[in-house]
Amino acid sequence: MKKVEDYITTIPDFPEPGIMFRDITSVIQDADGLKLAIDEMVKLLDGVDFDVIAGAESRGFIFGMPIAYLLHKPFVLVRKAGKLPRETVSKSYDLEYGQATIEIHKDAVKPGQKVVLVDDLIATGGTMKAAAELIEELGGKVEKIIFLMELAGLKGRDVLKGYDVASVVSYEGK
Amino acid sequence: MKKVEDYITTIPDFPEPGIMFRDITSVIQDADGLKLAIDEMVKLLDGVDFDVIAGAESRGFIFGMPIAYLLHKPFVLVRKAGKLPRETVSKSYDLEYGQATIEIHKDAVKPGQKVVLVDDLIATGGTMKAAAELIEELGGKVEKIIFLMELAGLKGRDVLKGYDVASVVSYEGK
Repeated sequence: MKKVEDYITTIPDFPEPGIMFRDITSVIQDADGLKLAIDEMVKLLDGVDFDVIAGAESRGFIFGMPIAYLLHKPFVLVRKAGKLPRETVSKSYDLEYGQATIEIHKDAVKPGQKVVLVDDLIATGGTMKAAAELIEELGGKVEKIIFLMELAGLKGRDVLKGYDVASVVSYEGK
Repeated sequence: MKKVEDYITTIPDFPEPGIMFRDITSVIQDADGLKLAIDEMVKLLDGVDFDVIAGAESRGFIFGMPIAYLLHKPFVLVRKAGKLPRETVSKSYDLEYGQATIEIHKDAVKPGQKVVLVDDLIATGGTMKAAAELIEELGGKVEKIIFLMELAGLKGRDVLKGYDVASVVSYEGK
C-alpha cells in the first residue's frame, strides 16, 4: 500500500541551491494521494478534544478545510495582513529576510476554546508560533499543531516547544 | 433549516465605499455553515462527469479541497506567479488597476481531461477566465465552473460566456 511520502515529489535546489523542496502539489494532484494525506492528518487528531481548526494562508487552507469538514469543526483563517474584512488581531514575526505579519478575526476564537492548528509543512516554525500566540491572545488554547510534513533539520519543533506537535511524514534534512 | 446565505456576513463599504463585502469567513467559522456550503457546492456537480478539480489561490483552495476529497478527485492549484515549484504555464489578465499573473503546473491537467473550476466568489470573472484558458492551453476541457457566491451586478457570467457556470447563492448587487 502506498504511503504519503510516495506521492511527494522532491525538487533539488528549489527555490535556491542546497534546498531539497518537498512538493505537496504532487500529493493532492492524485486523488488517492489527496485522500491518504487528509486521512493520515485526521488520524493525528484521534482522541484529541477540540473546538476549532485554524490554518495559515494558503497551504494551511488546503489541508485544514477537508479536516474541518470531516470532523465537523469551524475553520478559522490565519491570513497575511490586510486580507480579512472584520476586526482582527495581528502579529509580526521575523523571516530570514525581513518580517511578516499575520492576522485572525477577533471573533474567530472564543475564550476557553481549544484550537488545532494545521499547516502543510513545519520548517522554521515561525508562522505557526505567531499563529499560536494570536490564538492565545484571544483566550484560546492551542491543543495540538499538526503538519503533513516536517523538515526536522530546520528544528521548527524547538520554536514550538511547549506545544503538542505532530506530522505525518518527517524528513531529516532542510 | 438554515441556508448558506444565513451564514454570510455583509460588511458595508469594505474594502472601499459603496462595496457591500460578502464575507465567506463567517460561513466556514461555523461548523454547520461550513458543511452546508461544501454540500451545496457538491450538489452543483450532481451528474457532472469530470476528472480534476482546480481552484484559485487562496479562497478557491478553501472550497475546492473538501469537494475534491468528497468526490475522490485530484486537486490542482491555480497560483499567483512564482509560487509553484515545477514547470508551469502562466497567463496574465487585467485587473481594475494593473495586471495579475496566474500559473498552473504543466503536468496538472492532461490532454482530454475534464476539469471543474472552483472559487468562493464570482465577481468580474477575470481570474476564472484566465484559469479556464490555462486549462485549455494544456488540452483540458472546462466542464463546469462553480462558486459559492455570485455578485450578479458585476456581470462575471458575461466574461465566462460559453462556460457552464453555477453558484449556490446569488446577490443582485456588486
